[in-house]
Amino acid sequence: MSSSENIADHVDGSKNLAHVLGFMESSAKLVHDALNSQFASRDDRAEGWQRLNSAMRYSLLQEGAKRFRPSLALMVADALGESQDLVLPYAGAVECVHTYSLIHDDLPSMDNDDFRRGQPTCHKKFDEATAILAGDALLTDAFAWLGEAYAKRPEVAVRAIVELSRAAGSHGMVGGQAIDLRAQRGDATEIEELRLMHQLKTGALIRAAAVGSAIICEATEDQIEDLSDYSAALGLAFQVADDLLDFDQARPEAGSYCAMLGPEKTREFLFELTDEALEAIIDWDERAETLRSLVLYNRDRSR
Amino acid sequence: MSSSENIADHVDGSKNLAHVLGFMESSAKLVHDALNSQFASRDDRAEGWQRLNSAMRYSLLQEGAKRFRPSLALMVADALGESQDLVLPYAGAVECVHTYSLIHDDLPSMDNDDFRRGQPTCHKKFDEATAILAGDALLTDAFAWLGEAYAKRPEVAVRAIVELSRAAGSHGMVGGQAIDLRAQRGDATEIEELRLMHQLKTGALIRAAAVGSAIICEATEDQIEDLSDYSAALGLAFQVADDLLDFDQARPEAGSYCAMLGPEKTREFLFELTDEALEAIIDWDERAETLRSLVLYNRDRSR
Repeated sequence: MSSSENIADHVDGSKNLAHVLGFMESSAKLVHDALNSQFASRDDRAEGWQRLNSAMRYSLLQEGAKRFRPSLALMVADALGESQDLVLPYAGAVECVHTYSLIHDDLPSMDNDDFRRGQPTCHKKFDEATAILAGDALLTDAFAWLGEAYAKRPEVAVRAIVELSRAAGSHGMVGGQAIDLRAQRGDATEIEELRLMHQLKTGALIRAAAVGSAIICEATEDQIEDLSDYSAALGLAFQVADDLLDFDQARPEAGSYCAMLGPEKTREFLFELTDEALEAIIDWDERAETLRSLVLYNRDRSR
Repeated sequence: MSSSENIADHVDGSKNLAHVLGFMESSAKLVHDALNSQFASRDDRAEGWQRLNSAMRYSLLQEGAKRFRPSLALMVADALGESQDLVLPYAGAVECVHTYSLIHDDLPSMDNDDFRRGQPTCHKKFDEATAILAGDALLTDAFAWLGEAYAKRPEVAVRAIVELSRAAGSHGMVGGQAIDLRAQRGDATEIEELRLMHQLKTGALIRAAAVGSAIICEATEDQIEDLSDYSAALGLAFQVADDLLDFDQARPEAGSYCAMLGPEKTREFLFELTDEALEAIIDWDERAETLRSLVLYNRDRSR
C-alpha cells in the first residue's frame, strides 16, 4: 500500500465521486453560458466574418466538452471562499485557449483528426483556413476578454494574463505540442522528455487554471504556491490516468507511461501523484473538499 | 489640386523623406535587437522545442522586415516627448503579432506562398505544423511580454493588452483575413466590404501600434483620439498606395481599389486620406514632424 492511500483514506471516497461529478456538471453549464454570451452569434457585415464566428462557436460550444480546466478554476474559487462569478471570465478565457489548442492540434498537418467528441473537427466541418483562423481568434479574444473583465483590478488582471500566456505559449502548451510532434517521429522517447512534454502540453494550462483563479481571488502567496503544487501533480495524474485507461497490452502506444513503465508501475506513479496533490493542500479547510475529491476521482477512474 | 495638398504644403517634403527613412532604419535596428533578446535562441531540452524556437526566430528576425508598425509606435513616443525605450516592448509585441499573422497567412490552406522577403516562408523552411505552432507561440508570447514589461504600471498594461488583442482578434485582424479568404472566392467584392476588410486586416493593427503606444506613454484622451484618427487614415492610405504601386492596367487585380475606382480616383482617395491623417494631428507641435512626414512619404511612394 502506497503512502498516498494513507492521506487518501482521510477523505470519504463514495460521497465524493457524486460531489465532484455534480460540481463539474453545474460548472460546465455556467461556463457554457458564459462562452455563449461572450461569443454571441453575430449578423456580421461580411460572409467570411460570419463564417469565422460560426466556426468559433461550433468548437467552443460543442456538446460533450468536459470543461475540466474551467471547472478546476471554479473549484479553486470555492476553496478560497470566493464566488464562482468572480472567476467565470478567467475560467472562460482558459477554455478558449484550450479550445483553440484542440482546433489546431486536430489540423491535417498536426494530428489529422476528423472527429472530436463524436462531431467532425473544425477543419472538417468548415475548412482548414477557417479552422486555423478560428483557433487564432479564440486565443486572441481570450486575452481581450480577460483584460476587459478585470480592468477595474488591473494588478490582478495583468498577473492572470501573464500566468495564462506563459502557460499557453512557447514555454508552455505550444512548446509541449512542438515536442510531441517530433517525438512521434523519433523512436526512443525518454521518460524525462515524456514528462517534460506532458508538463508543457497539458500540465501548464491545468496549472494556470488553478493558479490564475487564485490570483483573481487575491489568494495569499502561500495559497498560490499550494495550488501550484496541487495542480502540477493533478495535471500529470490526469495524463497518467488517461494512459492507464487507454492502455492496450497487445499494442502498447509509444510515448505513454504504460508502454515505458508497464501498467503496475504506472498505477504506482498515479498513486504517488495523487498523494502529492492531496499533500499540497493538506492544511486547507473543508472548503477544499471538492479539490480533494477531484484527485481521488481521477485516481479511481482508471480502475 | 485637392485640399490635402494645402495642408501637405506646410510640410517640407524633400527633407522629410530622408528623415522618415532614417527614423525607420534606426527603429528597425532597435526593434530587431529587442526581439532578438526577448526570443533568444535556447538550448532546450527537447528537439521539437528547439525547432519551434528556431522557426519563431527565423520569421521574427528576417532581413528585409520593414518594422513599419513598431516604427510607428516609436514615432508616437517621440511625438509625445517620451523615450523610445519606454514603448519598445509594446512595439516588439506588435511586431510579434504582425509576424504571426504573416506566418499563418502564408500557409498552404491560406495564401499558399512559398517565399516572403526573398526567403522561403516558415512552412517551407520548416514544415506546416511547426509554422502553425511558431505563429501560435509568437501571438501568445507577445501578451506575456507585454504583461511582464509593464507589470509595474498595471492600468497601462491592461489597457494596452486590450487594445492589441481587440485589434488582432475576431473583431480585428483575424476577422479581416476571414473576410479576405471568402472574398477571393466570390466575384463582386463591394467597395464597402473591401474597406471593411482592409480596416480589419491591416488597419486595426496599424491603429493599435499608434494608440497602444500612446496608452503606454500615458497620453491624454484627446491625444489618443487624434492618434486614432491619424492612424486609421494612415493605415488605409498605406493600403491604397500599395494598390497604386501594384496596379497593372492590363490585369487589374480583383479586390483592389484601382480595379474598382480606376487609378485616378484611387490617387484622389489617397490624397484625401493623407489630408485626413495630417488634419488629425494639425495642432500637434514640431515633435509630431516624423508622423507628418510618414504620411507624405506614403503618398509619394506610389508616384
